[in-house]
Amino acid sequence: MAKNKIKPRILPGFMELLPREQILFNSMYDTIREVYESFGFLPLDTPVIELSETLLAKAGGETEKQIYRFSKGDTDLSLRFDLTVPLARYVAEHSADLAFPFKRYQMSKVYRGERPQKGRFREFYQCDIDVIGNEELDLTYDAEMPAVIYNVFKRLDFGEFVIKINNRKLLNGFFEELNLSDKIGDILRNIDKIDKIGKSALIEELNEIIGDECAINKIIEFISIEGSSDEKLESLKNMSVSNKKFEEGLTELENVIIYLRKFGIEEDCFEIDLKIARGLDYYTGTVYETVLKDYPGLGSVCSGGRYDNLTEYYTNKKLPGIGISIGLTRLFSQLITEKIISPATGSIAKILVLPMQSDMEYTIKVADMLRKNNIPTDVYYSQKAIKHKMKYADRLGVPFVVVIGDDELAAGEATLKNMTTGIQTTVKLEDLISEYKKQIGE
Amino acid sequence: MAKNKIKPRILPGFMELLPREQILFNSMYDTIREVYESFGFLPLDTPVIELSETLLAKAGGETEKQIYRFSKGDTDLSLRFDLTVPLARYVAEHSADLAFPFKRYQMSKVYRGERPQKGRFREFYQCDIDVIGNEELDLTYDAEMPAVIYNVFKRLDFGEFVIKINNRKLLNGFFEELNLSDKIGDILRNIDKIDKIGKSALIEELNEIIGDECAINKIIEFISIEGSSDEKLESLKNMSVSNKKFEEGLTELENVIIYLRKFGIEEDCFEIDLKIARGLDYYTGTVYETVLKDYPGLGSVCSGGRYDNLTEYYTNKKLPGIGISIGLTRLFSQLITEKIISPATGSIAKILVLPMQSDMEYTIKVADMLRKNNIPTDVYYSQKAIKHKMKYADRLGVPFVVVIGDDELAAGEATLKNMTTGIQTTVKLEDLISEYKKQIGE
Repeated sequence: MAKNKIKPRILPGFMELLPREQILFNSMYDTIREVYESFGFLPLDTPVIELSETLLAKAGGETEKQIYRFSKGDTDLSLRFDLTVPLARYVAEHSADLAFPFKRYQMSKVYRGERPQKGRFREFYQCDIDVIGNEELDLTYDAEMPAVIYNVFKRLDFGEFVIKINNRKLLNGFFEELNLSDKIGDILRNIDKIDKIGKSALIEELNEIIGDECAINKIIEFISIEGSSDEKLESLKNMSVSNKKFEEGLTELENVIIYLRKFGIEEDCFEIDLKIARGLDYYTGTVYETVLKDYPGLGSVCSGGRYDNLTEYYTNKKLPGIGISIGLTRLFSQLITEKIISPATGSIAKILVLPMQSDMEYTIKVADMLRKNNIPTDVYYSQKAIKHKMKYADRLGVPFVVVIGDDELAAGEATLKNMTTGIQTTVKLEDLISEYKKQIGE
Repeated sequence: MAKNKIKPRILPGFMELLPREQILFNSMYDTIREVYESFGFLPLDTPVIELSETLLAKAGGETEKQIYRFSKGDTDLSLRFDLTVPLARYVAEHSADLAFPFKRYQMSKVYRGERPQKGRFREFYQCDIDVIGNEELDLTYDAEMPAVIYNVFKRLDFGEFVIKINNRKLLNGFFEELNLSDKIGDILRNIDKIDKIGKSALIEELNEIIGDECAINKIIEFISIEGSSDEKLESLKNMSVSNKKFEEGLTELENVIIYLRKFGIEEDCFEIDLKIARGLDYYTGTVYETVLKDYPGLGSVCSGGRYDNLTEYYTNKKLPGIGISIGLTRLFSQLITEKIISPATGSIAKILVLPMQSDMEYTIKVADMLRKNNIPTDVYYSQKAIKHKMKYADRLGVPFVVVIGDDELAAGEATLKNMTTGIQTTVKLEDLISEYKKQIGE
């Protein structure tokens, strides 16, 4: 009985890739994982589904509206919307079994049912690292984070980048001194617009919020600080803000900069940016944003910072931490859209073996030999016309083909075809590996 | 204001690992992925959430009851319960952009809200490969599947294993010839119990279902076929079942065995098992199960087979395929429970640098040098007493520690401590890499 066909489609706001794009995505994923592991971060893989009471312990506002929440039986469930809340739950649950400082990475999908729009996804990968201390966490970790970011973006190789650094104690202390603590959010949102609206429009906006010319001048002085990192630190000292938090933040910022240099991070790869604050109710010390210099329009591609207490909703322990996150799905999508990267021309297989006769034994032997030499190898087994076989090779985008025709079979040979140059070389089977390695320049 | 703490816990039926276990799990995952890629399978990563109409196009019965299904706005959504239905949707949706035969792997989590019990999970990894043909698919792929399984379990190294092979055409043709096509399900379920209940009890059971002594004798003859693969094939031929399907299945089975040998699979790693059938309404040709010889109680650790039409619910195209799946979460959990594997003693970091003085510059330089030599390296930055530092090294389970004390700092040296033997060796910094490589036997 004929049944109506269902239209095959995915939901809007979900990214799904063709194999060539997926290979490129995976290579970025693998690079980030390798760098994270090179610093000794430990892998975690928490469930996608958790109890709503666990995930919503802190959430509120926008996040709560976006969450995928549903019941199964009597249980109120939600899909995780970030990897930080599950980390907090994990650390609170397993703290007795963990070595502190606990360094973990998790690179997994998270879910936010927001209105889909360009560059926004409902399912996306976050690639997080965090270091969690027990009661305290040394400031050196505040410099290790940018060292990790530095290595990630050096390896990913999207051109020059800069890691912007600020300190929330410095920021909070400054506004506290001006008696503007309750207006920080409003003020920072406006400061953020300075590049768009200009200084005089900003002063007008601030005037409406604050109405105190002296304070506004001080704010303008603060955000106008320019120069090298050392010059900015010097200017900050010269502002003589006599606030304990401000001074603490300034000392921290100064020390982070000193450590950064010890980590060998080049001077033009980091800068102090007094305008960045990140999540207002979360970060309490060093904060980071990362910008690709050639593509500032992408916004921050890696952000994070220090927080005082990861697990406050679950335990009375004090567990301060520091972390950064790369939103890989969004980054990948932007890089593809802006044509900064393009899908790999190669397949997973480095060589495709094409038998041009029906005896599979020799063909299978050749493929087995290639695989034993760590060369991923595909074989086109179907008995089809040559044009079908070559079309498969082309569509796959495989860089090399090994042709096994009657002559090769009879002579114990193989013909290696470089699909980029089109050049064919027939060699004895025992010389195939060395010929291949020669051609790829190994 | 004090707020009530929420008990940190995960849902029953969800597997979550401590870092050492996670490292072991990931190494298994990586091994499977490497083998899949060595055969040129292409990566896919479909969304966890799909439209219910898409995922439930075929489902029914148990699966439909277990599915996590919910609404967001007006949309009826479900979490995928396997990777085959999303593959079918993907191939139907993107067939114009794929090269056929389309070889893909996907190693991702799937969701089934079944009653949690030992060895059953609500969230678990499936590690699937499938080859999808356009209109047709060569029989050689039926032998490539066991070749992949063979390489996976050789590499995973859980001792001897056997890949059991059968053919559904052979099975269906046999029962068709006995006019028992409508009772196949019942009969096979009873045959499956033979090892438990014995032959005479089986005959009694079959008598109740069939009531035809001649047919029962024929069935007993069929399932009693023993010997080597060649002897079994010979016995099957000698049964002279004059049914076209049976003959077709027998020829396929014979050819798959011939190809298997060409793939270099050792004779004791595969066998014909006429009792396996897999999903009754799905597979149509070759079927597989894989058993670890030393741990038969685990059941089949890798199963699959050939099907006629992957995408029938979405398109009119005819896309036959063949695939296998490893339920990694269940396998891992069983292997741990049975103590067949145990969590790695090592951390992700191969070396932990322990500064025993406050100058971090030299310490960071040492760590940076190690990382540049592809040695994952952690550093304990916190200014704590030595006992805290050594305790961290122990809990982390790191195999080597590099101690940087005042003497090392002054002399440009480093002390490498082997945490297994306890032996310490102090060397010039420029000799640290070679000393480490010597100690790990490289």
